[in-house]
Amino acid sequence: MNKKLLMTTLIAAAAAPVMGFAQEAEEAAATVAADEFVWIMNSLLFLIGGFLVFFMAAGFAMLEGGLVRSKNATMQMTKNVALFSIAAIMYWLIGYNLMYPLGDWAIEGWFSALFPSVGVLEAVGVTLADADDAGYASTGSDYIFQLMFCAATASIVSGALAERIKLWPFLIFAAILTGFIYPLTASWQWGGGWLSEAGFSDFAGSTVVHACGAAAALAGAIVLGPRIGKYKDGKVVPMPGSNLPMATLGMFILWLGWFGFNGGSQLAMGSVGDVADVSRIFSNTNMAAASGAVAALILTQILYKKPDLTMILNGALAGLVSITAEPLAPTLFGALWIGAIGGVIVVLTVPLLDKLKIDDVVGAIPVHGFAGIWGTFAVIFYGEAAVGTQILGMVGIIGATFVLSLIVWFILKAVMGIRVSEEDEINGLDMSELGMEAYPEFSKG
Amino acid sequence: MNKKLLMTTLIAAAAAPVMGFAQEAEEAAATVAADEFVWIMNSLLFLIGGFLVFFMAAGFAMLEGGLVRSKNATMQMTKNVALFSIAAIMYWLIGYNLMYPLGDWAIEGWFSALFPSVGVLEAVGVTLADADDAGYASTGSDYIFQLMFCAATASIVSGALAERIKLWPFLIFAAILTGFIYPLTASWQWGGGWLSEAGFSDFAGSTVVHACGAAAALAGAIVLGPRIGKYKDGKVVPMPGSNLPMATLGMFILWLGWFGFNGGSQLAMGSVGDVADVSRIFSNTNMAAASGAVAALILTQILYKKPDLTMILNGALAGLVSITAEPLAPTLFGALWIGAIGGVIVVLTVPLLDKLKIDDVVGAIPVHGFAGIWGTFAVIFYGEAAVGTQILGMVGIIGATFVLSLIVWFILKAVMGIRVSEEDEINGLDMSELGMEAYPEFSKG
Amino acid sequence: MNKKLLMTTLIAAAAAPVMGFAQEAEEAAATVAADEFVWIMNSLLFLIGGFLVFFMAAGFAMLEGGLVRSKNATMQMTKNVALFSIAAIMYWLIGYNLMYPLGDWAIEGWFSALFPSVGVLEAVGVTLADADDAGYASTGSDYIFQLMFCAATASIVSGALAERIKLWPFLIFAAILTGFIYPLTASWQWGGGWLSEAGFSDFAGSTVVHACGAAAALAGAIVLGPRIGKYKDGKVVPMPGSNLPMATLGMFILWLGWFGFNGGSQLAMGSVGDVADVSRIFSNTNMAAASGAVAALILTQILYKKPDLTMILNGALAGLVSITAEPLAPTLFGALWIGAIGGVIVVLTVPLLDKLKIDDVVGAIPVHGFAGIWGTFAVIFYGEAAVGTQILGMVGIIGATFVLSLIVWFILKAVMGIRVSEEDEINGLDMSELGMEAYPEFSKG
Repeated sequence: MNKKLLMTTLIAAAAAPVMGFAQEAEEAAATVAADEFVWIMNSLLFLIGGFLVFFMAAGFAMLEGGLVRSKNATMQMTKNVALFSIAAIMYWLIGYNLMYPLGDWAIEGWFSALFPSVGVLEAVGVTLADADDAGYASTGSDYIFQLMFCAATASIVSGALAERIKLWPFLIFAAILTGFIYPLTASWQWGGGWLSEAGFSDFAGSTVVHACGAAAALAGAIVLGPRIGKYKDGKVVPMPGSNLPMATLGMFILWLGWFGFNGGSQLAMGSVGDVADVSRIFSNTNMAAASGAVAALILTQILYKKPDLTMILNGALAGLVSITAEPLAPTLFGALWIGAIGGVIVVLTVPLLDKLKIDDVVGAIPVHGFAGIWGTFAVIFYGEAAVGTQILGMVGIIGATFVLSLIVWFILKAVMGIRVSEEDEINGLDMSELGMEAYPEFSKG
Repeated sequence: MNKKLLMTTLIAAAAAPVMGFAQEAEEAAATVAADEFVWIMNSLLFLIGGFLVFFMAAGFAMLEGGLVRSKNATMQMTKNVALFSIAAIMYWLIGYNLMYPLGDWAIEGWFSALFPSVGVLEAVGVTLADADDAGYASTGSDYIFQLMFCAATASIVSGALAERIKLWPFLIFAAILTGFIYPLTASWQWGGGWLSEAGFSDFAGSTVVHACGAAAALAGAIVLGPRIGKYKDGKVVPMPGSNLPMATLGMFILWLGWFGFNGGSQLAMGSVGDVADVSRIFSNTNMAAASGAVAALILTQILYKKPDLTMILNGALAGLVSITAEPLAPTLFGALWIGAIGGVIVVLTVPLLDKLKIDDVVGAIPVHGFAGIWGTFAVIFYGEAAVGTQILGMVGIIGATFVLSLIVWFILKAVMGIRVSEEDEINGLDMSELGMEAYPEFSKG
Repeated sequence: MNKKLLMTTLIAAAAAPVMGFAQEAEEAAATVAADEFVWIMNSLLFLIGGFLVFFMAAGFAMLEGGLVRSKNATMQMTKNVALFSIAAIMYWLIGYNLMYPLGDWAIEGWFSALFPSVGVLEAVGVTLADADDAGYASTGSDYIFQLMFCAATASIVSGALAERIKLWPFLIFAAILTGFIYPLTASWQWGGGWLSEAGFSDFAGSTVVHACGAAAALAGAIVLGPRIGKYKDGKVVPMPGSNLPMATLGMFILWLGWFGFNGGSQLAMGSVGDVADVSRIFSNTNMAAASGAVAALILTQILYKKPDLTMILNGALAGLVSITAEPLAPTLFGALWIGAIGGVIVVLTVPLLDKLKIDDVVGAIPVHGFAGIWGTFAVIFYGEAAVGTQILGMVGIIGATFVLSLIVWFILKAVMGIRVSEEDEINGLDMSELGMEAYPEFSKG
C-alpha cells in the first residue's frame, strides 16, 4: 500500500541519477540491451571484487598485528591504516594514470598523468552512448578494484619490516611504491606495456602484485637489518606473535578477499562463459588455499613433530598467492597441487631467509615472493605461457621493483634514517613513537 | 553428467519459489523484460548493501569494545548485540511503517503504523504483475537495507555512553530511538515529509542517520554525566582503550560496510547510469575515508608530535560520515577535501567536548555529529541544495532528536535511574552488572 | 580517453575467457537471452552466498577461540583452519559426487564417485549451448556454495569437543564427516534421495547441516568425556571463555554469513519472484537472529538476574539455526517467534547437557542440534511438510549421523586414542600439542 509513496519519496531523495534510470527504462521499454547488460554486470563484478579486496587491508592488519609483539601492535595498526589511506590518495594522484597511460609511454602519456583526476570517474548518470570510449565497465568500478591491488603491495611491505622501522620513512616509501613503482611495473603488464606484448601471463598478479610487494619488502629488510636480538650466536631467536587468534582472523579475511582478488580479475561477468569462469576461479582459489594450509600442516608435523599454526596460516596464504597467476585454467586437482607446493615452499624458505639473516617478521617474502614466483612459473603447465616469457616477466618486475625500492630505501636511510633507536626498539614502537599501548591493561609476562 | 539430477533434486528441494522462476523463464522465452531486470538489479543492490551495512553492527562493537577499558568490554558487547536485535524488532513493529507512512501524516498513517507486519514482505514467488505497486525493488530488500540504517543510530549512542550507563535503561532508549525517534525524523526526509519537500539534501544520511545518532548520544551524555575521574582538577584524565587492534578492526569493518551504506543509497543498479553512479560513490567514499585518516595522522603529528591511532581511526570514520550526505556529485578531489576536513574536525573537536566536560568515550559525537554536520553543509558545494535548506534540515532533525532524546533520558533517569553506582562503575560494569569478565585470564596491569 | 587502451590491454590480460564474452556479446547483439540471464544471476547468487558462507569458517573460529581458555586458543585456531581446508579437499575428492550421485544410489553412482574431479568444473569459457546439461547455474558456483555447507558441519564439532581432544584424531574425523557422513546423509535430501522423495522439508539445512554437525559432536562428546574438573561433586564448574569480544565478533560473522547460507539456498535469483524471495529470506533470517538474542537476554535476566553474554550470542545463533529449515514461508512475525523459541531452547538446554555430564564447550549441541530440531519441526506451521515426515527426516539424518559418528569415534579411540593426557589437558593443548601460545605475553591471572 504505502509502497508507491515510498518509491516516490525515495526516488525524490536520490533525485537526478534515478531520473536517468527512469527515463532509460522507459526508452528501453521491453528488453534489456546486451551491451548495457554486459557493462552493468562487469561493473558489478568490480564493485563486489572491490569491497572484498578492500577488506584484505583489514586482513593484513590483523595478520601482522597478531604476529608482532604487543609492544609494537599499535604501530602496526597505525601503519596499516595509514598505508592504505596513502595508497588511495597516491593511486588517484599519480598511479592510476601512470599504470594505464595514454600513448605508449610517449611524453603525452606521462604528461596526461600529471592531470589525473578529471577523467577518472564517469559523469553522474552517464549513458553508454555518452561514453563512447566507456570500455567494458564503469571507470569508477575499475578504479576502485585496481586501487585495492595497488594498496596490497604496501601491506605486504609493512609486515616484513615490522617492529623496527620508523613510521614516517615507511609511509613515504608506501607513497612512492603505490604512486610510482607498482603503477610503473604493473603497467608493463596490465597497462599494455612491453611484458603483455611479450606474452607474459599473470592472471591476477602473483608477480605483478605479490612478488612486487615482496621485492620491495626484501629491499627494505636488507637495508633495515634484522631486529635486535633476532640472530644471536648463529642462532635464530624466536619472537612469537602476541595474538595468534587475531592473526588467524587476518588469514581468514585475506582468504575471503581473495575471492574478489582472483574472481574479479576475470574482468567480466556478463556472459554464461564469464560467470562460469568466475565460479571456476572461486573454486580453484579456495582449493589452493586449502591445500597450501594442509601441506604446511603435514610438513611442519613431519619436520618439527608439532604443527605450527603460523606456518599453516602462511601456507594457506602461499597457496592463494600461488594460484593467483592462473586461477582459471587449472582443474581442481591442478589447484590442489599448485597450492600445496606453495605451502611447502613457505615452510622451507622461512628458515632459509633466517639463515641469510634477512628478518621478515611475518613471513611476507616467502608467502608473497617465493610462492608468487612459483605460481607465475606454474602457469606454463596450464596456460599458454612460455617458460622464457614467464622468467622474463618475473625478472623484469621483481628486478625493477627491487632495484627501485633499494634506491628509495637508501635515500630514505641517508636523508632521515629509517630505523628507530636501539632503546626505542627494545621498549617497543608503540610507546616510543606513538605513546600509546595496544593492550595497556594486560601485563606482560 | 550428474548435473541434470542435481538440478532436478535441488529444484525439488526449493519447491514452490523455483517453480515460479521456471514458469516465468518459459513465458519470457527469448529475452529479459527491462522492468523486471531493473527490479531484480535494484533488489540485489539492496541485498548486498544490506549485508554490508549489517556488518557495521560488528564494526561498531569491535570499535567500541576496543576503546573501552577491559572491565567494561563484556558490557559493551552485550549492548551492541542487544541494541541491534532490539532495533530489528522495533523497526519492524513500529519504525518502518512510521518512517514510510500512508497518507501524509494523517491519522490513517499513524493508525496503519499500528498494524505493521502484514505489508512488509512480498508474498512468496511474487510477480511484477501481482505487485502493481511494487515500486522499484522488492520490499524485503528495501526493508533489510533501511533497517540497518536505523540500527546504526543506536550503535552510535552506545559508544558515547559506555562505561557508566546501566544496561536496561540503555536498551529501553535504544528501543525508543529505533522504534520512534529515528523513524519519525527520518520520515521527514526519506518518508516524503516536509524536509524532502523543502529540498533538503542528504544522500545517505550524514544528518538523517549519523547526526541523529550523535544528537541522541549528546543528550544522553549530558544527562548521564562524565565517568568518575575523567575530569579532575580541571584536567582531562586519559582512559585509554584496552584493545586497539580490535578497535582498528572495527574501523575497517565500518569502512567496508560504508560501501553498502553509501553505494546502496543510490537505490538503483539496473542501468548503465546507475551502476556507474554506484561506482562513483564507492570511489568517493573510499577517498573520503582515506583523506580523513591522513588528515588526522598529519594533524596529530603536528599538534602532539606523535600520531594518535584512535584519532586516525576516528579520522577515517569522520571522512566517511562527511561524504555520506553527497557521495555521488563530488569529484575524487572533492571527496578528498571533504573527507580531510572531516578528519580535521574530529581532531579539533574531541578536546572541545572534553572542555565542556561532556564525556564521549569513543568520540562518537565528533565523528557522527560534527562531521555529519560538516558533510551535510558541504553538499552545497556540489549538490543543488541551498544553504538555508541544509541548515533547516540539520536544525530540524538534530534539534528534534536532541529534544526528544533529552526527554526520554530524563524520564528514564527519574523512573529507574540510568547510571550504575559509583562502586559498580569503579569495579567495571562487566562484574557488577553481568558477572562476567571479557578477558578473565589476563591480569590487569 | 585512455579507457580504450585500458580495455584493450585488460582484455588482452585475461585472454581467452574474455574473448568468449566479446564474441557472445556480438552474437547476442541487441538483447539478453532469458535463459542466459537466469543462469548468470543464479550463479552470481551462489558466488555471493559462497563467499558469505565461507566467512562463517572465520566466525566459528572466532566464536570458539573466544569461548575456550587461552591455553587452548592456538589449538582451536589450528583445528578450525585445518578442518576447513580438509573439508575442501574431501568434499572435492569424495563428498560432492557422493552427495549428488548418478543413478539413484546404484553401483554406477558410487562408482562414478570414485572419479570425481573431471566433471566438477565447467570448461573455461563454456556456453549454454555447450552445456546442454548445465542446469540452472554454473557447476563451479554450485560446488563452492555446497562445499561451505559441508565444512560447517565440522566447524560445529570442533567447538563442542574443544580443550581436550587430540589434533589428529579430530582432523581424521573431520575428513570422514566431510568426505562421507555428511555427503551421504545430505544426499538423502539434497541429492534426490529417499527423504526428498518422502517429502521432508529443510530449506537450508536446520537438520541436514546443523543437527547433523551437532549429532556428530554429541557422539564425540560422549566418547571423549568431559574436561577434567568440569563436573565436581555434583556441581558444574564454570570454565569461562578467555576472550568474549572475539566470541562476539564470531557471532556477528556467523550472522553475516547466514544471509548467504539461507539466502543462497533459494538457489535462484533470475526472476522477480526469486529475488523477492531472497529478500524475504534475508529479512526473516535477520529477524530470527534478533529475536533469539532478545529471548536469551530476557530469559537469562529472569533466571539468573544477570544477562549472560555467551547465552545471548548462542541465542542469536539458535535463532538463526531455527529459521534455517524454512526461512522463506514465514512472515516476519513467524520468524520472530520461531527464532525466539530457538533462543529459549538454548538457555534451557545448556544446563540440561551439563546435568547429563555431556561437556559441550561452546554450546554447539544446543545451538545447532536442539534449535535445529525445533526449526525443522516448525516448518509444519508454515511449509507444506507433514509432522511425520519431518520427524522421519530428523530421525533419519540425526540418527544415521550419530551412529556413524559414534562408530568412527570408537574406532579412533581404539586405534590411536582421541584424548590428550591429563597433564597435557591441564597445561593446555597449545603448549603440549603445538608448543605455541596464543597470547604468549599476557600473564594469566
